[in-house]
Amino acid sequence: MKWTPIGGLGEVGKNMMALEYNNNILIIDTGIMFPESDMHGIDSVIPDYGFLSDRRDQVKGIVITHGHEDHIGAIEFVVKDFPGVPIYATPLTKGLIENKLREAKLMDRTTVTSVATDATFNVGPFKVEMFRMCHSIPDNCGIGVTTPAGLIVHSGDFKFDHSPVDGETSDFAKLAEFSARGVLALFSDSTNAEVPGITPSEREIEPALEHVFRDAPGRIFVATFASLISRVQQVINVCEIYGRKLAVAGASMTDNVRLAQKMGYLNVPEGLLVRLEDALKMPPQEVAFMATGTQGEPTAALGRIATGKHPQITAQPGDTFVLSAHPIPGNEEYVHRIINRLYQKGATVVTTAHSKVHVSGHACQEEQKLLMSLVKPKFFVPIHGELRMLHAHRRLALDVGIPAENIFIGENGTPIEFVDGQAKQIERVPGSYIYVDGNTVGEIGQAVLNDRASLARDGFVIVVVRRNEEGGLAGKPELISRGFTYATDTKDLLDRIAQTAAEGLSGINGGSAASTIRDKAAELVQRAISSQTRRKPMVMAVVV
Amino acid sequence: MKWTPIGGLGEVGKNMMALEYNNNILIIDTGIMFPESDMHGIDSVIPDYGFLSDRRDQVKGIVITHGHEDHIGAIEFVVKDFPGVPIYATPLTKGLIENKLREAKLMDRTTVTSVATDATFNVGPFKVEMFRMCHSIPDNCGIGVTTPAGLIVHSGDFKFDHSPVDGETSDFAKLAEFSARGVLALFSDSTNAEVPGITPSEREIEPALEHVFRDAPGRIFVATFASLISRVQQVINVCEIYGRKLAVAGASMTDNVRLAQKMGYLNVPEGLLVRLEDALKMPPQEVAFMATGTQGEPTAALGRIATGKHPQITAQPGDTFVLSAHPIPGNEEYVHRIINRLYQKGATVVTTAHSKVHVSGHACQEEQKLLMSLVKPKFFVPIHGELRMLHAHRRLALDVGIPAENIFIGENGTPIEFVDGQAKQIERVPGSYIYVDGNTVGEIGQAVLNDRASLARDGFVIVVVRRNEEGGLAGKPELISRGFTYATDTKDLLDRIAQTAAEGLSGINGGSAASTIRDKAAELVQRAISSQTRRKPMVMAVVV
Repeated sequence: MKWTPIGGLGEVGKNMMALEYNNNILIIDTGIMFPESDMHGIDSVIPDYGFLSDRRDQVKGIVITHGHEDHIGAIEFVVKDFPGVPIYATPLTKGLIENKLREAKLMDRTTVTSVATDATFNVGPFKVEMFRMCHSIPDNCGIGVTTPAGLIVHSGDFKFDHSPVDGETSDFAKLAEFSARGVLALFSDSTNAEVPGITPSEREIEPALEHVFRDAPGRIFVATFASLISRVQQVINVCEIYGRKLAVAGASMTDNVRLAQKMGYLNVPEGLLVRLEDALKMPPQEVAFMATGTQGEPTAALGRIATGKHPQITAQPGDTFVLSAHPIPGNEEYVHRIINRLYQKGATVVTTAHSKVHVSGHACQEEQKLLMSLVKPKFFVPIHGELRMLHAHRRLALDVGIPAENIFIGENGTPIEFVDGQAKQIERVPGSYIYVDGNTVGEIGQAVLNDRASLARDGFVIVVVRRNEEGGLAGKPELISRGFTYATDTKDLLDRIAQTAAEGLSGINGGSAASTIRDKAAELVQRAISSQTRRKPMVMAVVV
Repeated sequence: MKWTPIGGLGEVGKNMMALEYNNNILIIDTGIMFPESDMHGIDSVIPDYGFLSDRRDQVKGIVITHGHEDHIGAIEFVVKDFPGVPIYATPLTKGLIENKLREAKLMDRTTVTSVATDATFNVGPFKVEMFRMCHSIPDNCGIGVTTPAGLIVHSGDFKFDHSPVDGETSDFAKLAEFSARGVLALFSDSTNAEVPGITPSEREIEPALEHVFRDAPGRIFVATFASLISRVQQVINVCEIYGRKLAVAGASMTDNVRLAQKMGYLNVPEGLLVRLEDALKMPPQEVAFMATGTQGEPTAALGRIATGKHPQITAQPGDTFVLSAHPIPGNEEYVHRIINRLYQKGATVVTTAHSKVHVSGHACQEEQKLLMSLVKPKFFVPIHGELRMLHAHRRLALDVGIPAENIFIGENGTPIEFVDGQAKQIERVPGSYIYVDGNTVGEIGQAVLNDRASLARDGFVIVVVRRNEEGGLAGKPELISRGFTYATDTKDLLDRIAQTAAEGLSGINGGSAASTIRDKAAELVQRAISSQTRRKPMVMAVVV
């Protein structure tokens, strides 16, 4: 039996993983990541599952743990590449997947089977057992897979919340049962492996929200993730207590709230939810809003409100904005900028820096150790995290008593082979990630990104060299630049550089090859710019 | 009397401030900031003190609080613009300033006067009193200024450390004395205004360092800020205890250590400091290294070691890297990448996530309140922080009992006028910041940055349209692109787009103006690219 983590940028197995036995393949999750800040122009990043592409007939099924983007966002690509392969998901997850497939017009290319959060079903030689784990979205599951090589347990994204908002706690009984049956390997979420203690229960944010609602002099905007259905429920609850109506801003959150309400995952008192247009006409102290944009995204509702670009909502003195989320590392600067802009408009901003208005959806160290103690695996594989987190998780496993030689840290594309109760890492396959840019997938590689980084740094200069009929230089070369400097500011500079190029090229004649002139012109301009400005724009020459 | 905060990107008065009385100007600090992540290609950012430029004769002196880059980094620009204006600084600060002036060949353009950390001196109508405040560099001071309008107190960067490594505590006596004399206004450091409690003493990191040194199986690399002289002292101390030699990697830290040692700010046992070349030949468990690069800078020592590009040092299994610094917001992603890369090379990494190997140099909430209680100012002006921090600091001032109408939050360039014991904010002057790129200062504006952002996102395409002798189209236009996509991957795409352009331009003739053809060609190509790829590279046309 072979397990391979696929995709997730720096995070191992975050977006996708594959189990193989005798040429039968089971895929777990099909997620997407958002690009790192120096992946210029990239819209999203999908797992590189190319090593499975010539084995389509062997893929027996796809099981999804939960409905977050980093676990379902690549479903349209996977369905196109593996048409007809059945997908299994719990009800809310199924609803979210089908929204995506409908939008991509792929509903007829596959079937999504709804499975209960405690379902057991077979996919090829694999017996799959779903089990409920708490996380920041309803219907989240871990997965047990009984294979001919043994039982493996995958935690999925999890925390142990003993008082979750939806009342559905993690399935400790199932974990204990797995342990009794003997677990070959545990694959476990490492997100918070560097954070000591226990992640607070979602319930613990209610006093903080109540405090805000009690004191706010005007409108209240609660920003959180579009998929954080339980946070929406909590805001609905405080709205009811403090007699405010609630409106939702932003398409993704509106869609999710509608779906969750229809499927019974939200309990909304009659008349409490109002339309955005109506809410904006109500007295400020009688209304609250939910919005997306807690990661500083300029096009999400919160970002637009902060920059004054929202078509309907204008921040005003007396408004209170609650950022009910932590910034994902890399987004801090953008999030802080939004907070500053809201203050600039006279609003008050409440963040996790002042008040417990958000808790993580992932287990901290003590919960991670509890899971290991419950499951008692022979082998332990920390996943869902960057190397630094996997190593922290490894240290916890050592503390719990798992022998160092039974702990495996790999990277995306590094399979672990389980044979006769033994495990070893084997040769790496391509399994990292692919860039999505516009509607092109996989066409943008590192070379293009390097060019973009260079253009971002210093812009470009194009030298147009005109030759006369005899092949000699026809006048001074023309320089066209963008992102380098402004011709109006530094006309002299560009003139001087063009002059230098003209002098350097004065000797060309009918015998000079165009390519030689091109290289020479570029080199002359590059050198002149470098000596006069110490900058290095991209220089290209055109000879005509 | 008028006070104006200048520069500091989003941080108010961080880099520079000006006091004015009857056309006499006192400048406090002349610092630099590093660019935000979307300021593409910008090397650094200096305060825009242009509103002082036609008033050179009025500038009576420059007082510097301490030797960090964000307080002295712009000294060369200020000295060029205000030659001959005397600079006052405490001894180590003077040494660091002179290093900069020497490098910029400006030593003959000004005089730097060394003042004691408890000096009193006059600058024009201002009586300046330096007073020691703890921070993460020796000889750090706050400044009291007695003006005809009253006494103002500027905290500088500070924390209240009762057991600093150099033994020099903050000057509580002076603060109490100010209070007895009556303080018109307190300007105070807001950096940690969102952090509850008290910043731990620098001493508290010693057990963590000792723990690392006790257990490390091989070489130890401690990375921190080049100016954190007290951290160097602490590492020297543990090296002595555990019998290791110490070498310093990186020019800036080597320079600072040399200066601090020469001036008596470092206590180094004979023979403990060794040259890098020698250290690299010693047994791994007998040596430690200090390096810069804790903010993920790719060109600093740590960044080069992590990416395998350091000319002398190669990370290896058994190495322990200690990151003795917090990532500055915006740098997290780069710092995490370095940590992951070091793990990839088999090293162990110790950060503040696992162990108290760093403490902040700035006061937290209880210290900020203590300062207000000690100084008892009439007016309170939170500075040195983004708006979100200033507002948090404002809330603390309200808690301490300062009336809301006596607290002023402004932005860079917004002066406060103090007249007859009253204060008010007056009309804003230009006082934000100026971009430095290569050796050009202030030439790069927002328009160039917008072009760079656009080039970073989607690159560019140049259309070269050739006309024949009759002015008609001579063959298919040529497309040159960088950062957009690769011609080898998508030759077809570019061919199709060129064909579309050729068809659209087929009607041109001798009567068509070059500018019309240029606009039309660009528009045709832009539209074809957008419809086929949904991307928007910058498109420019050249007609020849």
